[in-house]
Amino acid sequence: MRQDHLITATQLSRDDIEAVLDRAREVADDPGAFADRHAGHVLALCFFEPSTRTRMSFDSAAKRLGMETIGMGDVDSSSVSKGESLSDTVRVIEGYADAMVLRHPSEGAATLAAEHVSVPVVNAGDGAGQHPSQTLLDLHTIRENHGLDDLTVGIMGDLKYGRTVHSLAAALTNFDVNQHFISPESLRLPRSVRFDLHETGAQLREHTDLDDVLGDLDVLYVTRIQKERFPDENEYHRVAGEYQIDAETLDDASDDLTVMHPLPRVDEIAPDVDETDHATYFEQAHNGIPVRMALLDTLMENAEADEETEADR
Amino acid sequence: MRQDHLITATQLSRDDIEAVLDRAREVADDPGAFADRHAGHVLALCFFEPSTRTRMSFDSAAKRLGMETIGMGDVDSSSVSKGESLSDTVRVIEGYADAMVLRHPSEGAATLAAEHVSVPVVNAGDGAGQHPSQTLLDLHTIRENHGLDDLTVGIMGDLKYGRTVHSLAAALTNFDVNQHFISPESLRLPRSVRFDLHETGAQLREHTDLDDVLGDLDVLYVTRIQKERFPDENEYHRVAGEYQIDAETLDDASDDLTVMHPLPRVDEIAPDVDETDHATYFEQAHNGIPVRMALLDTLMENAEADEETEADR
Amino acid sequence: MRQDHLITATQLSRDDIEAVLDRAREVADDPGAFADRHAGHVLALCFFEPSTRTRMSFDSAAKRLGMETIGMGDVDSSSVSKGESLSDTVRVIEGYADAMVLRHPSEGAATLAAEHVSVPVVNAGDGAGQHPSQTLLDLHTIRENHGLDDLTVGIMGDLKYGRTVHSLAAALTNFDVNQHFISPESLRLPRSVRFDLHETGAQLREHTDLDDVLGDLDVLYVTRIQKERFPDENEYHRVAGEYQIDAETLDDASDDLTVMHPLPRVDEIAPDVDETDHATYFEQAHNGIPVRMALLDTLMENAEADEETEADR
Repeated sequence: MRQDHLITATQLSRDDIEAVLDRAREVADDPGAFADRHAGHVLALCFFEPSTRTRMSFDSAAKRLGMETIGMGDVDSSSVSKGESLSDTVRVIEGYADAMVLRHPSEGAATLAAEHVSVPVVNAGDGAGQHPSQTLLDLHTIRENHGLDDLTVGIMGDLKYGRTVHSLAAALTNFDVNQHFISPESLRLPRSVRFDLHETGAQLREHTDLDDVLGDLDVLYVTRIQKERFPDENEYHRVAGEYQIDAETLDDASDDLTVMHPLPRVDEIAPDVDETDHATYFEQAHNGIPVRMALLDTLMENAEADEETEADR
Repeated sequence: MRQDHLITATQLSRDDIEAVLDRAREVADDPGAFADRHAGHVLALCFFEPSTRTRMSFDSAAKRLGMETIGMGDVDSSSVSKGESLSDTVRVIEGYADAMVLRHPSEGAATLAAEHVSVPVVNAGDGAGQHPSQTLLDLHTIRENHGLDDLTVGIMGDLKYGRTVHSLAAALTNFDVNQHFISPESLRLPRSVRFDLHETGAQLREHTDLDDVLGDLDVLYVTRIQKERFPDENEYHRVAGEYQIDAETLDDASDDLTVMHPLPRVDEIAPDVDETDHATYFEQAHNGIPVRMALLDTLMENAEADEETEADR
Repeated sequence: MRQDHLITATQLSRDDIEAVLDRAREVADDPGAFADRHAGHVLALCFFEPSTRTRMSFDSAAKRLGMETIGMGDVDSSSVSKGESLSDTVRVIEGYADAMVLRHPSEGAATLAAEHVSVPVVNAGDGAGQHPSQTLLDLHTIRENHGLDDLTVGIMGDLKYGRTVHSLAAALTNFDVNQHFISPESLRLPRSVRFDLHETGAQLREHTDLDDVLGDLDVLYVTRIQKERFPDENEYHRVAGEYQIDAETLDDASDDLTVMHPLPRVDEIAPDVDETDHATYFEQAHNGIPVRMALLDTLMENAEADEETEADR
């Protein structure tokens, strides 16, 4: 990857993705070899929206590379509440840190930040936009369990609003993957996303019933259906209930089926699934560490190379 | 101590306690010898309830062992507010950290966490339950000032609701200590706690008046009487006033009397006590560092020994 | 500087200031030489008021000296809300840290803290009082661009309420600087501040119109005029508008004019100024790192020297 920033999953070619995932595997195999790699460098964790797992995961990943981190504290405490523009904020923070991870409620925030600063920017979620490091850890989890070719993946739940799903589906078109989308009619993939996927020549099919395709799947990626999407609570319970799985649901699945979920889950996956060999969602969450270490390592390496190039001029 | 977690003070035998306190003394004598002992390891500070001193104390202790820490941020910001179960949260965080310190409003939370993760868990307070590292630093403070045998300790204030008090009283039964409990009638030790203490064969007496016993005490442990415990504010002021001390109160005490308090204090100990040789509450708070360093060091050492044992199999 | 604490800018002599700024220049020239200088030491960031840039800047500065930091978390979460006195809080934290940075809403808080603890205290803002590290970074920015003698500085905006302005004006009297103050009549420097400045024999003039003096300035220091200062919003817009600058305003300025602002800005400086060579406010913010590194380094060095002196006795 010769990118200076990581803003969207779609900026990544198949080679880019594989380079990061290869490095993530190296990290997982021998984390000690990376322990001091970026000692003396500071990462700013700029979370303009609440986050626990993404922030903690980047925090831990940075520290396992020897980096220090600084945080913005509570969002309301920040200068933002004094009316400062995002571009001013990131231009100030640029002076305090060697790289920054940004989560912001507005789509396009990370792109804007990257235009204004010279340190690497990682998009950790911009509104309804992108969350590319989640996509990378999803891909890593699939790859470590099945490889990324000659594969059948089902993505189930809220396919309309979930940015995680749209990024993953787009990224999977780089590989030889059959994609099945399972959702209630009202939460289908948006037309624009379907169009983009078709444009790539990807194999994809839509279903309203998991049973139609469960037996064929290598991976079942479950997402949460949110109550807020339904005008009526009874309607929500009726619909959401059909897209919840438990251990019994999986009786008809392949023994090798990998069940994933971006977490947090509420009722989508019953606790009895945790005891099965299918359950891979905690492993998936834990993969956030090696993948984000690989990502930060790559971006820091590129930034240092850029500095040397400039120095040579 | 061969424990993998620290959940309750009552899990600790006399030998366990002395082993940690011996190590705390080593730490205090030569902190530099511990400075890099756990470099490259990450401690998660999981505070589901506000805390300043306990969190800062663990944070500092970890860093003085060379560890890095990651925090959960504001509780409302966490996935908890999205309805995630505690067991899911800790199973995710397990992948980010090599040990975790947990404070949670629900009694039993730390026990639950310890059942679900393979990294060491330290209970930093679970509702009305336990807060064992506070007990260890209380014991350390007593021991450094008087030893832990042939001792007379008075515990005064709110003895009904204070978890600190119940843990300390239970832990002291491991040693040859006469315990005196001084409180208003309405805030006596709960019957169940008295019963448990009697069962151990401990020497203990209850008083409503500090003067009855002050002259005999080596240690006076003062706790706060909270306004919320009284239906009537006048009643609160009348009662609480009788259990506040100042320098004059201590005229009749032994010269060697050690006055302790878990802090924060409000009116229980007048500022003029600070100037006397009795005042030991800031020393007590500061002992949080060597004691928590000794505790984390012990648990990390055990965890590493477990890993090696598994690797040998 | 042989100070043990940094509480006010006025405690600093010209020699003190130059010693810190010289060290800041050393840091900026070769940050790597300072990277491990205070490894194993812990700095407590005690922010009783919201702050993003000051806190992040101290956090980063400490880490770039090899120090670890611990924070208080959300102010409401702290023991403060249980009614603990500030002196108790800092006496406890003293046991957790080797130095502390304090921001507090009450004027005099840092002075009080310094009286109660034996570790170095840095005042990072106490109500309407002082914020001396801001003054040092302002001076550093002026010095790096123009030197600190034979200089003409204009300070514009809200001169009545801004603590930043009062500190800077006082500190500049140590040097051979002509000071011009540009503000609406209602936001002139307070009489007491003018009196103190006159006492030093400083050259200073007041204006209501920037044009009267713009051509003579080496430095224009702009501050925000806050809406809350005006009883009427129309009045605010009319007045504030006259003290906003854009690229066109600066056509009549010297080519070497340096425009500064403590940030965050809202409308005081139009974005088109950012593209001019005058814009120095981001550089100014970034100078927080070397200046605060130099400051912490100096105070830690003094504290260590004190300890050795005591050990020798």
